[in-house]
Amino acid sequence: MKYYAKPLSKLISELSRLPGIGGKTAQRLAFHILSMDEKEALALAESITEAKKNMKYCSVCGNLTDTDPCMVCSDPARDRSVICVVETPRDVAAMERIKEYGGLYHVLHGAISPMEGIGPEDINLKQLIVRLQQEDVQEIILATNPNIEGEATAMYIARLVKPSGIKVSRIAHGVPVGGDLEYADEITLLKAMEGRREL
Amino acid sequence: MKYYAKPLSKLISELSRLPGIGGKTAQRLAFHILSMDEKEALALAESITEAKKNMKYCSVCGNLTDTDPCMVCSDPARDRSVICVVETPRDVAAMERIKEYGGLYHVLHGAISPMEGIGPEDINLKQLIVRLQQEDVQEIILATNPNIEGEATAMYIARLVKPSGIKVSRIAHGVPVGGDLEYADEITLLKAMEGRREL
Repeated sequence: MKYYAKPLSKLISELSRLPGIGGKTAQRLAFHILSMDEKEALALAESITEAKKNMKYCSVCGNLTDTDPCMVCSDPARDRSVICVVETPRDVAAMERIKEYGGLYHVLHGAISPMEGIGPEDINLKQLIVRLQQEDVQEIILATNPNIEGEATAMYIARLVKPSGIKVSRIAHGVPVGGDLEYADEITLLKAMEGRREL
Repeated sequence: MKYYAKPLSKLISELSRLPGIGGKTAQRLAFHILSMDEKEALALAESITEAKKNMKYCSVCGNLTDTDPCMVCSDPARDRSVICVVETPRDVAAMERIKEYGGLYHVLHGAISPMEGIGPEDINLKQLIVRLQQEDVQEIILATNPNIEGEATAMYIARLVKPSGIKVSRIAHGVPVGGDLEYADEITLLKAMEGRREL
């Protein structure tokens, strides 16, 4: 991009490395950043540096946090007998958004995927077993993604944990609320039928 | 967003202030940034700071640049008798991309818009007149946007400059290459007919 001065083309190339940000969008963002107040632009840069510097993984549950243990793990109001197992910190945020779940979390940071060479030892699973041994957990809810890797991971954990007598559950599959039955794929529909409940 | 730690929610809110970046995208970008190598993330932050610090407007043509005068204005190979007048630095980049134009530029940083209270004195127009008086310019090409404001600005500049004997031209309007005649609006089609050329 020789028609841009160096600092500008550097900014464009850094921005275009972000997911979902193509060349055109990167250009638009870069020009916008240059047109921002100096204070605003520096605040953006600083928020990146600060977030990167201060955010770490909770040593207990693996969630992203600026304190260790994280807000959830250190909250005395949370029910310590239930652990919801998810793949990523984003899933924790999604679960928290429903404002219904009051238990703890465990973030696996991935899912078992033989295709990609990711085995049980490559995800944050050992720490979950340690927690189950040390804490008085009654139930673990497997909320890994409803895809092949997530299912395989849920099955693996279920088989691993069940012998200990701890209740193991899996979130329900079915047609999404607001969705259109007509457009639901067959497997989802099958799961929705299988999981039907009497009213 | 209480389910995010402070540095993370700060990053999300800063990112969501960028144009075209909604809440969901900001979250996705923030989590991506946190998953990047420390070096990469800091490089992104630094590119923002550096671009903001080092990029300025060329004192001659008004283009974004890290040197003053800019690369184009100081390039001895450029034809100094033609000035292409555009609204924004992004338009300069667009023109440079066609790799055909070898003259100079003048960036107005806006267009005349009575609706928004933007008059001729609010855009970088005075400096253009100064250039026309001081330099030996043979032609100015008005490449403002093909919308109401851009047309009004082109008309205004044409009327202002023509008495001096300098050739004033306007880029052609017509159907875009690769476009579909059927979907062209009437005004574009009319302009395309008016601007027809003998083959």
